Amino acid sequence: MSKYQILKGHIVFTDTPNSFNVIENGYIVSSNGSIVDTYQELPQQYESYEVKDYGDALIIPGFYDLHNHAGQYLQRGTGMGKQLLDWLTDYTYKLERDLADVEFAEVVYKKYVNHMLKNGTLGACSYATSSTEGTECLFEAFKGSGMRAYVGKVNMERNAPGYIIESVEKSLEGTKYLIEKYKHEQKVKPIITPRFAPTSKRESMIELGKMASTYNVPIQTHISENMDEIAWVKELYPECKDYASVYKDYNLWGQTPTLMAHAVHLNDSEINMCKEENLYIVHCPDSNINVRSGIAPIKKYLDNKINVGIGTDIAGGHKIQMTEAIVRTIQSSKILSVQDPSALVSFPEAFYMATAKGGAFFGNVGKLKPGYKLDAIVIEDDELYKNRYSILDRLEKFIYTGDDRWILDRYVSGKKLDIR
Amino acid sequence: MSKYQILKGHIVFTDTPNSFNVIENGYIVSSNGSIVDTYQELPQQYESYEVKDYGDALIIPGFYDLHNHAGQYLQRGTGMGKQLLDWLTDYTYKLERDLADVEFAEVVYKKYVNHMLKNGTLGACSYATSSTEGTECLFEAFKGSGMRAYVGKVNMERNAPGYIIESVEKSLEGTKYLIEKYKHEQKVKPIITPRFAPTSKRESMIELGKMASTYNVPIQTHISENMDEIAWVKELYPECKDYASVYKDYNLWGQTPTLMAHAVHLNDSEINMCKEENLYIVHCPDSNINVRSGIAPIKKYLDNKINVGIGTDIAGGHKIQMTEAIVRTIQSSKILSVQDPSALVSFPEAFYMATAKGGAFFGNVGKLKPGYKLDAIVIEDDELYKNRYSILDRLEKFIYTGDDRWILDRYVSGKKLDIR
Repeated sequence: MSKYQILKGHIVFTDTPNSFNVIENGYIVSSNGSIVDTYQELPQQYESYEVKDYGDALIIPGFYDLHNHAGQYLQRGTGMGKQLLDWLTDYTYKLERDLADVEFAEVVYKKYVNHMLKNGTLGACSYATSSTEGTECLFEAFKGSGMRAYVGKVNMERNAPGYIIESVEKSLEGTKYLIEKYKHEQKVKPIITPRFAPTSKRESMIELGKMASTYNVPIQTHISENMDEIAWVKELYPECKDYASVYKDYNLWGQTPTLMAHAVHLNDSEINMCKEENLYIVHCPDSNINVRSGIAPIKKYLDNKINVGIGTDIAGGHKIQMTEAIVRTIQSSKILSVQDPSALVSFPEAFYMATAKGGAFFGNVGKLKPGYKLDAIVIEDDELYKNRYSILDRLEKFIYTGDDRWILDRYVSGKKLDIR
Repeated sequence: MSKYQILKGHIVFTDTPNSFNVIENGYIVSSNGSIVDTYQELPQQYESYEVKDYGDALIIPGFYDLHNHAGQYLQRGTGMGKQLLDWLTDYTYKLERDLADVEFAEVVYKKYVNHMLKNGTLGACSYATSSTEGTECLFEAFKGSGMRAYVGKVNMERNAPGYIIESVEKSLEGTKYLIEKYKHEQKVKPIITPRFAPTSKRESMIELGKMASTYNVPIQTHISENMDEIAWVKELYPECKDYASVYKDYNLWGQTPTLMAHAVHLNDSEINMCKEENLYIVHCPDSNINVRSGIAPIKKYLDNKINVGIGTDIAGGHKIQMTEAIVRTIQSSKILSVQDPSALVSFPEAFYMATAKGGAFFGNVGKLKPGYKLDAIVIEDDELYKNRYSILDRLEKFIYTGDDRWILDRYVSGKKLDIR
């Protein structure tokens, strides 16, 4: 393999949430999967290396989906008229149960991973199910794909049907087994994944928190999705000040990198806790609309310097495409902005959350600049558009109207993935 | 050609907004493009005729997009962060100007029509531009496709750049020319299309209204999209009680079938006027979010027995797929429902608006029942889903997550269209 890998095209990414960096007809030079630098003109020292010339195509970072459920992949777009509890009982829990069957899980999870990659998602924080064997299939599906992932076996020990909950002992044992098995992987790593406070027992949360520290493994769970859930948590944990305090008091708050999905209704103290302990909020706009939770005040979180990434949250969200989650992030903020103009999230801000900020959870990915891994996708659009619109117009058009057929190639750490 | 055409598959449609009619493994028998009847078992009298067996696929009505702009097709998904006026000036008006070039218009409009058909839209009420020659290209593009359409040359005589407005005389002359030329067409018909009150002169509206009556041609325009626009209309027409009254007073309100797009902020008197004179409101949910107009109270209109259809409103809306407009109709209503549970629009209601109610504007299309034209699309979904979910779950999944690749075939008046 040659020492330098060189891609040519229109390079676009966000280094800050405020604006795009654009190099028209530029070069990305990388070595061993890491970007050396980007150039408008190729320096003489690289002239002897082969250039992969993408012509008039755009080269942009891939997307990082910080919250979705592999265990709900098949049910996307069904039962959307149901109330949350019926939806869980009639659709979700039964499907999660069936994914303990490793033959079924292998087929479904491979399809799920492939579907994300096709659409330019190069990293995902994924919930499998409470089944340890099933979750193992998800690890393997990611491993075989070249994609980055954090994979969580879901811990649930109460308040759900008997067929998907476990004893605390078994729940912890499965988690530990998977951490031990996959802790040395480069791209596909374990993440501690209690479903959410209502299905967790106190002793389980405490032990999971210890495991996170011991193994230096990140944490993901749900918080404050809707008002009924918040009231339920209050009832289940009368000793805790609020929802965030439940996780904080039971050892699952920020000792390692921590993702909190939804956060539609945080109080000021909770917002402060997110800020102080450097948590990640994961915005899941389609899901919050579909299950009628409301719209999370994302711009307020950004103004508070909180880390905010984006999740498709399939299957509460129906679309696996991160492009759709970017658009719905902007649209949701626009709806809030009708009453409060300061709520508006801009296109570069949403793009930054889906690429640079999401990528930061995985390491140095999500930007096309020196020191970052070469994680990128190549976008080829229509002749009719190309001749008429600017590079940034074309990017916006891809995000708003494009699909997997617009994506020519996908690179992870400089390796071109073979996707069908 | 044989006397009876027979399709077999899972037949699904809405006869009322309340629920779906489903015939699993049923037969549609049609003759000369019109449905004779549907059957669970094929009657003996048809046994000698060939059956086109779609196996486990769904056969559903096509979609009818009651409001979109062919003249803005190319710009979908660009300039979405702009304020309305900048968006119009920087993107829309320039593109509309360029579509006076018939060579350009031919290419763009063919692509536009094909894109709709690919996605299962079998009828559209379409705005071209103010160019008569350009609009002629749009008529021809539809004629060559087999799709149903109402095509409007856009009348604008003030309050827009000089390069796209016309004198009242020229504006009326072009409209009359196109009506005369296309008035005998079966599937592609003219529609009177003043852009909206602010760009119309009073004398033009009065004359267009007369033309509508004389030739029995329907009318389409915009109403009450956002608050600034409503204030502007008030200023331009101080003699009229409200926005609806401008159209009513100047002869463009219900003397022939009339489409009013948006209607985000109607007052009670206007709602009453819609009801009394049998107007169609066209809900354009993506557009209303994208340009920050707000969310139209669709359920309230439905409860008032007003005709409500759905439009993609490209390019205020970014997606040409009516499936997306159905989902966004439900999602928008869910956002309103967080405060007001009665605002919720159900899946069958939204599907009904996009098929049966939209179809009614074109005649007897949009339902799969006796006396209706055989306008239908055939949906083939994934093996993994098929085996697990009900027919209605599968339909919902197609609407929420499907794309043109799921559509096997498209029929208009029984003719299978050849789409690439």
